[in-house]
Amino acid sequence: MTYCVGLKLNAGMVFLADSRTNAGVDQIGTFRKLTVFERPGERVMVLLTSGNLGVTQSVRQLLMEHANEDMSVWSAPTLYDAATRAGNAVRQVYDRDHKHLQELGIEFNCTLIVGGQIRGERCRLFQVYSAGNFIEAQEENLYFQIGESKYGKPILDRVVTPETSLDEAAKCALISMDSTLRSNLSVGLPLDLLCYEADALRVTRFVTIDADNQYFQMIRKTWGQRLKQVFTELPEPTWHTSEPGAKPSVPVRAPIPAGAQNTERSTSATVQAFAQSPPPHVPGGPKG
Amino acid sequence: MTYCVGLKLNAGMVFLADSRTNAGVDQIGTFRKLTVFERPGERVMVLLTSGNLGVTQSVRQLLMEHANEDMSVWSAPTLYDAATRAGNAVRQVYDRDHKHLQELGIEFNCTLIVGGQIRGERCRLFQVYSAGNFIEAQEENLYFQIGESKYGKPILDRVVTPETSLDEAAKCALISMDSTLRSNLSVGLPLDLLCYEADALRVTRFVTIDADNQYFQMIRKTWGQRLKQVFTELPEPTWHTSEPGAKPSVPVRAPIPAGAQNTERSTSATVQAFAQSPPPHVPGGPKG
Repeated sequence: MTYCVGLKLNAGMVFLADSRTNAGVDQIGTFRKLTVFERPGERVMVLLTSGNLGVTQSVRQLLMEHANEDMSVWSAPTLYDAATRAGNAVRQVYDRDHKHLQELGIEFNCTLIVGGQIRGERCRLFQVYSAGNFIEAQEENLYFQIGESKYGKPILDRVVTPETSLDEAAKCALISMDSTLRSNLSVGLPLDLLCYEADALRVTRFVTIDADNQYFQMIRKTWGQRLKQVFTELPEPTWHTSEPGAKPSVPVRAPIPAGAQNTERSTSATVQAFAQSPPPHVPGGPKG
Repeated sequence: MTYCVGLKLNAGMVFLADSRTNAGVDQIGTFRKLTVFERPGERVMVLLTSGNLGVTQSVRQLLMEHANEDMSVWSAPTLYDAATRAGNAVRQVYDRDHKHLQELGIEFNCTLIVGGQIRGERCRLFQVYSAGNFIEAQEENLYFQIGESKYGKPILDRVVTPETSLDEAAKCALISMDSTLRSNLSVGLPLDLLCYEADALRVTRFVTIDADNQYFQMIRKTWGQRLKQVFTELPEPTWHTSEPGAKPSVPVRAPIPAGAQNTERSTSATVQAFAQSPPPHVPGGPKG
């Protein structure tokens, strides 16, 4: 499995990819899933790949090797065209492989993130699906995740806005990755992180993060510690028997069948629910 | 979809379920997924259900109606037997429905959490699969989630241990639910929360949580705020050009093809990576 995330912000773009591949749990490999297409001053495109490795490697290879043709991502006039061409590469591999995969019951599975900037355009971010179709990130939906995406989604949803700085977004992507690494064995180090500054049109910041990376070690340790601290500081619920007139909480209960009645004397307990604190002061409401 | 979680702690057990059902996005309904089987002083069993509603309702109904038979969960001498009988009910519905579902391309999908305590036994927690087979929670794996489980897993993994109190576990389950509610439309209020105190052998604490519940409102608001605060307080990465001798970070690059060389003069940038802070002082190591 894989976890990759690409974010588009006002300040630029952030791309983060893990590097684990697996077929079952005993065929674990490292494969780097972030590829840079850079012609300094003219275009920077970043490709992130997820899915069946035989498929995603072929797609990447096609995009790299068919470089002189009209359909190359190098000659794409816009990033929209580059995404179209990436989709075409997916379809080319599909045409070649899918029947054979199908015969062995293997799903044709390939998802890409394609993002970057071409001179004259703004930064753009696309997600390309197995069918070669694709969608573009918008202000309301400014990131894409591929692979094992759910564990790391809540923190992105809570924190990232278009105004988030590149370094904050990189930090958030790393926390999102940390949550994924902890919950899923099939995502693994090293990580490739690229921060692209809008209009730079060249790669200026890139780091491969392994287990020794001090910043990521700090993130992993401190985030976990502080999260636990916040958790501890949040008050716990107060339970009490509901007051007369209050709507009681009643669980769905299976009726005790006649043949299974308790022979001993036993009584149900009074069931407690959360205490509701007194309602907050309503401006203009009754005063004491 | 659904999100339910059951936790087994030294102090007892916590069960939490949402109540949304959906078939697509326009057939949204409310169905309560937590059912209590209680004979005070003798047994408390809680059933949480996830999957195809036609299947899970039938399974629950079988467990409730076949109450007088030898195979009833009411007469099960142990919770292991109760889990076996719940699995049998799943198999009974499978035998009746799966061919017809299959003909319409619908998956037979039913996952249960069965937990509680029968007098003479400890608290026990089981997850029952669509095939009617099941697993039991252990000290190393003290919770089960069914339905839309991934968004809410990281906080459980970070916080819950066997020593966690019931109220802390309830708080953690609610935070886990909050993360799920924010990231997935198909999980919805109200929530059913039951806290079972070990050896009580009766239901003492249960609450149905709707949008007006003040404790859950506080959790949702405060957790999000504090998370953002912790996020802001974590330092951002420092980037710098790698020092001579340090292993540089180099992305995978597609070679610029001959036919696509830049006609203008342009140069690559020097690529910056994360600065590593000086290594921490090693006791017994060299001193200044």
